[in-house]
Amino acid sequence: MRLYTKSGDKGQTSVIGGRLDKDDIRVEAYGTIDEVNSFVGKAIAELDTAIFPDIVADLEKIQHELFDCGSELSNIKAEREHKLSEEPITYLENKMDELIDEAPELERFILPGGSDASSSIHIARTVARRAERMIVSLMKAEDDISPVPLKYVNRLSDYFFAAARVINARLGVPDVEYARSAKVFRGSNKKRRDS
Amino acid sequence: MRLYTKSGDKGQTSVIGGRLDKDDIRVEAYGTIDEVNSFVGKAIAELDTAIFPDIVADLEKIQHELFDCGSELSNIKAEREHKLSEEPITYLENKMDELIDEAPELERFILPGGSDASSSIHIARTVARRAERMIVSLMKAEDDISPVPLKYVNRLSDYFFAAARVINARLGVPDVEYARSAKVFRGSNKKRRDS
Amino acid sequence: MRLYTKSGDKGQTSVIGGRLDKDDIRVEAYGTIDEVNSFVGKAIAELDTAIFPDIVADLEKIQHELFDCGSELSNIKAEREHKLSEEPITYLENKMDELIDEAPELERFILPGGSDASSSIHIARTVARRAERMIVSLMKAEDDISPVPLKYVNRLSDYFFAAARVINARLGVPDVEYARSAKVFRGSNKKRRDS
Ligand code: B12
Ligand code: B12
Ligand code: B12
Ligand SMILES: C[C@H]1O[C@@H](n2cnc3c(N)ncnc32)[C@H](O)[C@@H]1O
Ligand SMILES: C[C@H]1O[C@@H](n2cnc3c(N)ncnc32)[C@H](O)[C@@H]1O
Ligand SMILES: C[C@H]1O[C@@H](n2cnc3c(N)ncnc32)[C@H](O)[C@@H]1O
Ligand SMILES: [Mg+2]
Ligand SMILES: [Mg+2]
Ligand SMILES: [Mg+2]
Repeated sequence: MRLYTKSGDKGQTSVIGGRLDKDDIRVEAYGTIDEVNSFVGKAIAELDTAIFPDIVADLEKIQHELFDCGSELSNIKAEREHKLSEEPITYLENKMDELIDEAPELERFILPGGSDASSSIHIARTVARRAERMIVSLMKAEDDISPVPLKYVNRLSDYFFAAARVINARLGVPDVEYARSAKVFRGSNKKRRDS
Repeated sequence: MRLYTKSGDKGQTSVIGGRLDKDDIRVEAYGTIDEVNSFVGKAIAELDTAIFPDIVADLEKIQHELFDCGSELSNIKAEREHKLSEEPITYLENKMDELIDEAPELERFILPGGSDASSSIHIARTVARRAERMIVSLMKAEDDISPVPLKYVNRLSDYFFAAARVINARLGVPDVEYARSAKVFRGSNKKRRDS
Repeated sequence: MRLYTKSGDKGQTSVIGGRLDKDDIRVEAYGTIDEVNSFVGKAIAELDTAIFPDIVADLEKIQHELFDCGSELSNIKAEREHKLSEEPITYLENKMDELIDEAPELERFILPGGSDASSSIHIARTVARRAERMIVSLMKAEDDISPVPLKYVNRLSDYFFAAARVINARLGVPDVEYARSAKVFRGSNKKRRDS
């Protein structure tokens, strides 16, 4: 196999169903999804599967879903089906609710960091939010973008936050609160459990 | 607590004092500050506190300050106070002068890298510079942005450069010069010490 | 030496031959090259030189070349020579062909990840592609940009892909295929060897 095709040396590239400039906002969007995916790969490499079987499994599921997302965003064919379903979103929501019950209660912002893998998940979180901003720009520019990738990536960054906290909790690394934070997180897991 | 509020699924989000499109340059700016903060978290996780008590303490101080920065940039209220003071900037300047005296003299560009933590700080350096570019765009778009975040982030990337060099120096890892570099750094720590 | 010059506190900065706004697309382009370079530094720090003497040597060569690239992109002088030659591009092409023969045959997309260093190279790959998008924007905005940096960065991301695969292969870490991938890679190394 010859990997390089040189066809992109002039600044254009192929998408599913055509060719676009490499700096098209669409290419930015799925290129940034690819970047998120790589940071997820890094986090998996750092996680001890014995302690984090659930989170590693989730992250691998997410890696496939990020490709599904990229598939949809890189397809400009008129007749294409929007294949990304709501299942991955519901899955993230349910997992997140579980994870939040495991980590200590939270009222204030925390510093992104702690253990190695938790730091990497925080990075993935902020890169996912960057991807989300790109998708919003893409949706403004094109009128046929499915709403599902945006929803998915929005939920994903919240999942990453929850997972980062649980990783630290299981490793016994306390999250450090932002010293000048107001009480920004409403409600509490403990309270919700009781009600 | 339920972490996800779904309120951002349509592409808008809340800031302090209103709502904006997620791809608003303001959101880009403080979102990138959050990204810098996450890379700082990563670097802290990699640093041995026994060898680098000073740098770890600085980086934690910086994590709080990056939140202060984000606070200011995410606030669109007319009557808000600009709370970020010049103290953190002066602090960085003083620390930097100290650190530069500790690392070997430098005339030419060096390859970003060396030890693990030094590499991570170089990454934080380049992401901070990306945040800086965003803040400049924001200041062009809005006329009431405090000049302090820009100054802070500008100084921060220079601090990161100085810290990355000291980390390598303490670990005995030599910085590698860019082979075709001109003499780009003016003056020298040794000379300055003598004069 | 005093590292910080404060000259950029108002949002402008110096390039070779003048001054530009910090958020000028040209500054974005070479600033992102600096970011790629830092991720390459990280990958080198994670690679065992005993197992990967060839890849470590390549990555160091690449770090110098990324500076060459940055040199060209940060120069706005009319009379400048375009110094980046085609040699580094041909070098990457040849190395890639070798590396692709070492890793297992591939027909489908793989999840970016596996070993620690491979994950880091995948990150560098996606950041290089981000830099490439910036260079394309720069070439649209300015009419005197050499075509070589674009070509170089395009080839570089393919090299990173090939290197990431070989790193996993040598470490015995299998690449995981994207579950819903079509057969996207045309031809095969084994077939090509025979023909
Ligand atoms: C989109 C795309 C990407 C996307 C990946 C797609 C994604 N899903 O995110 C990104 C940007 C990540 C990417 C990366 C790379 N790519 Co690419 N990519 C393409 C492109 C444009 C389309 C490929 C594709 O998906 N085709 C659609 C397929 C064939 O259609 P399909 O049969 O219907 O199958 C898809 C759908 O059915 C869908 N699907 C199936 N079931 C389901 C279920 C659900 C729920 C959903 C949502 C979708 C879904 O997924 C299938 C696969 O996408 C092709 C060029 C082209 N126009 O073909 C290059 C291409 C395959 N890429 C190429 C290369 C080189 C790469 C990289 C190595 C580049 C690099 N240096 O980083 C990497 C490798 C990444 C990896 N990890 O393996 C080359 C391969 C050259 C070769 N030697 O054959 C190609 C041919 C481009 C070229 N240069 O000409 N790529
Ligand atoms: C700005 C903001 C952010 C910023 C952080 C702010 C910053 N400083 O950089 C960023 C982008 C980083 C962020 C991230 C997240 N956020 Co947020 N964020 C907000 C937002 C818009 C404002 C929060 C805020 O600061 N309010 C101002 C406070 C209440 O005012 P205050 O009392 O005056 O206190 C502030 C000032 O006094 C100032 N301050 C005090 N002393 C000093 C001194 C100095 C020197 C300075 C400069 C400032 C200063 O700091 C205080 C705190 O900011 C709220 C939504 C809203 N409109 O409230 C969501 C909100 C709190 N976030 C939310 C979420 C979910 C998150 C994330 C988990 C998202 C994610 N997936 O990444 C992360 C968590 C980050 C973390 N590490 O903990 C949710 C929480 C939902 C819930 N369950 O309650 C909210 C409510 C948004 C929503 N979805 O509705 N967020
Ligand atoms: C471009 C530039 C950068 C680029 C690097 C250039 C690149 N190649 O990618 C980037 C963005 C990476 C950078 C980073 C930094 N920089 Co700078 N940078 C500059 C700038 C604008 C030009 C430097 C330069 O290359 N001059 C051209 C030289 C002098 O010309 P030359 O003799 O012809 O030599 C060049 C060419 O011949 C070429 N060359 C030679 N042979 C060959 C062969 C080939 C094939 C090619 C292609 C090129 C080539 O390479 C030589 C070096 O670039 C100067 C300001 C200025 N206007 O001078 C600041 C400057 C040197 N930087 C400065 C600083 C502080 C930094 C950073 C520490 C900032 C930070 N916080 O990150 C880092 C350090 C990076 C590191 N790893 O060492 C300061 C130094 C202040 C001081 N105390 O002296 C300066 C003076 C800016 C200022 N603030 O005033 N920088
Ligand atoms: C928690 C806070 O984060 C901000 N926010 C919401 N979405 C994004 C994004 N994609 N990128 C950066 N910041 C975002 C909003 O201000 C929200 O209220
Ligand atoms: C050292 C050199 O780095 C460049 N420079 C200054 N600020 C930034 C930034 N935020 N991002 C990228 N490059 C920058 C200028 O060209 C400066 O001279
Ligand atoms: C493999 C696929 O990756 C996409 N592609 C090509 N160049 C870039 C880039 N710089 N950034 C993001 N995606 C890119 C194209 O769609 C190509 O076909
Ligand atoms: Mg959100
Ligand atoms: Mg600066
Ligand atoms: Mg390419």
